[in-house]
Parts: sequence; C-alpha cells; structure tokens
Amino acid sequence: MVPEPTPSSSRRGRRAAGGSEARDAILAAACAEFDDHGYTGTTLRAVARRAGVDVALLSYYFRSKDNLFRLAVGYPIEPSVLVEEALRVPVEELGREIVRLVLTAWGDPGVVTAMRGIVQLKVANQDNWASLAEFYQTILLQPIVEAIGGEDAEYRAAMASSELIGLAVVRYLLEVPAVRDASIEALVEPLGAQIQRWLTGPLPR
Amino acid sequence: MVPEPTPSSSRRGRRAAGGSEARDAILAAACAEFDDHGYTGTTLRAVARRAGVDVALLSYYFRSKDNLFRLAVGYPIEPSVLVEEALRVPVEELGREIVRLVLTAWGDPGVVTAMRGIVQLKVANQDNWASLAEFYQTILLQPIVEAIGGEDAEYRAAMASSELIGLAVVRYLLEVPAVRDASIEALVEPLGAQIQRWLTGPLPR
Repeated sequence: MVPEPTPSSSRRGRRAAGGSEARDAILAAACAEFDDHGYTGTTLRAVARRAGVDVALLSYYFRSKDNLFRLAVGYPIEPSVLVEEALRVPVEELGREIVRLVLTAWGDPGVVTAMRGIVQLKVANQDNWASLAEFYQTILLQPIVEAIGGEDAEYRAAMASSELIGLAVVRYLLEVPAVRDASIEALVEPLGAQIQRWLTGPLPR
Repeated sequence: MVPEPTPSSSRRGRRAAGGSEARDAILAAACAEFDDHGYTGTTLRAVARRAGVDVALLSYYFRSKDNLFRLAVGYPIEPSVLVEEALRVPVEELGREIVRLVLTAWGDPGVVTAMRGIVQLKVANQDNWASLAEFYQTILLQPIVEAIGGEDAEYRAAMASSELIGLAVVRYLLEVPAVRDASIEALVEPLGAQIQRWLTGPLPR
C-alpha cells in the first residue's frame, strides 16, 4: 500500500544485479541475526559481517536498524508514512481517518503474519521492551502529540493509540469472531468516535 | 488481593512439610517446562515427571494447567475471580467498576512483572496464540457476554475488553509517562465511560 522508500526499489532499473543480491543477502542475514539475538542484541555490524558486505551498504539500502527490521520481518507498511498520511486531515477528523487508514493498511494479507512476527521477536526478549517503547513514542506518538498540542497532548495521544492497540490485539491476535469479521466501515464510526474523544474531547478533572 | 484458592494455602496449618515441598517442586518443574516448551508444549504429565511426583497431585494442588501457569509465573490474580467480582454491579455501571477493579489489581507490584512474563512466554511461541485466545474467550469474555446479552454481545464485550488491553500495553508495557503516572481515579471516569459505551451504548448500523 505504501511504496517502499529504499534506494533499491527506486533505482532498480539502473542498478546491476549485484546490488539486488547484496540487498537480499543483507535481509537474510538480518533475519538470522534478529532470530538469534533479538532486536536489541542485533547490531548492523554483525548483520554486515554475516552477509559478507560492508556495513555502509546497510545504511545505504535500509537507512536504520528499525527499517531493516521492518523489511526483514516482511512488514509492508512504514508506520511513519501512515502517521504522516493521517495527519493531512484536521485534528477534529483525525479519529475516523486513523481508523480507516490503519485498518486498510492492516488489511494487507502479509501484515498480520508480520505483526505476529514482530510481537514475538520483540517481546520474547526483555531487553526489547525498551526499544519497542522508544520506537512507539518517537515514530507513532510524537507526531500526534505535536498535532493536537496542549498540556494533555501526550496523555490524549497515548490513550487514543491504546484504542488501536487494543483493537489490533482483539481483531488480529485473539481473533474474536465478532470483531475479526467486522468490516472497516462498521468500525470507523464507533472506534473513530472513541479515538476522537481522547484527542479533542473534554477530559474530567 | 484475591486469596489464592489452592489446598496448600487453606490447609497449610495442618499439612506435613512434605506437602508444601511437593507443591514447591511442582512449581519449579512447571517453570522449567514452560520455559523449555512454551505453554502449549507443556503437559501436566511432563511437569509431574520432572518434579518426581504423581500427576494426580498436580490436579489436587493446582486444578488446571492454566492455574498452574498463573502461579508458576507468579501472577497473583485469578482473572475469573476478578470478572465475577466486577459483575456484582448492574451492567449500566460495569464500565467504571471494571476499570477500578482491574487497575487496583494491576497495581500490585508483582503483576506487571508477571504480566510481561506471561506475554513473553505465551507470545514467543506461535502455538500459544490459540491457547491464549481460548483462555481470553472462555475466562474473560464469556461471562461479560452473558451479562450484557443481545445479538451484539460478543462484539460489545470484545471491544470493551480491547480498551483495557490497550491501556495495559500503553501503561505497563510501553510506559508512556502521562499514562503510566495517571492515578486510578483519573482513569476511572474517561476510560470507564468509553467501556460503558461499548457495553450498553448505541451502535451505528
């Protein structure tokens, strides 16, 4: 759904076959390293060594460890792009827009499998909690916090995001039939309204 | 908070030391087996063999694999007891009551550590998703579904529960400061209202 913004995809036409092979070797090495050492325990240097390439090539192809991780586990959406897209609507319409965009993105057949993979890999190692939290706070939460502003912004954005986290768990991981089988449009209105209340509704004091 | 309903705690006074030793041996063996084989891959028979006791003793002390798991990882609350307690109030007051009870229970210092342990152990193995989903549906969801009734009951109960799941992730696992540091009373009103809407509010058609 979201185009993959790596040099290899945008320049595929004029790169030699060697470039694509190196990229595949890096991805395979990254999978193995993440599997052996978890997210926190994996270094770009170790991945480069395993793939038999220079570490500079990893930055060139994948920009960051987080992006490499996302592509290694086959997660097809770049979360920051999704957040950016959602923030094109006024903050008063953000609740429903986020539900529509996120559920559409999650509708990609590869996403749920990849999501389980990420949860398993990140969560299996205690050290990974911190990196998961950091990723969540900087990539997902911070842009929303800035968009809504005010002193309660972090609380509002985090509670709004908790609605989507809870939905993801119930719909895709626990697979409760009534929620798993609900259409996107059936969820946009009620869930969008709940999220909108956290973002811009009154908060009790 | 909730008394531990095993024979060893209620009969500790008149049991021989051997009984308590056997119970401790079973718990230690269970920890090791769950660690080695995950939740699904662990059998009561294998735990009994490892502990050097008869398998009948496991049922006597721990009733079920789920309860053994809960005690082996040190999770101090029995979820079914919590659900039963919440359902003492009328369904119109359930939202706020659930938030108050669950947050109070989760306030126990051992809970978050145990919760992380459960998530890590259950989630690290793909096979465990199904058993986690089954546990969630039968122990947590079903009593709420029955209490609210009607054709949308499963959807309503699952979406209500998703609010608490999302909160647990954001407050205890991702630890967003504004949500981690919020008092129970500050969360009861807004979160209770969101949950109440799923349980008994109008649903768009």
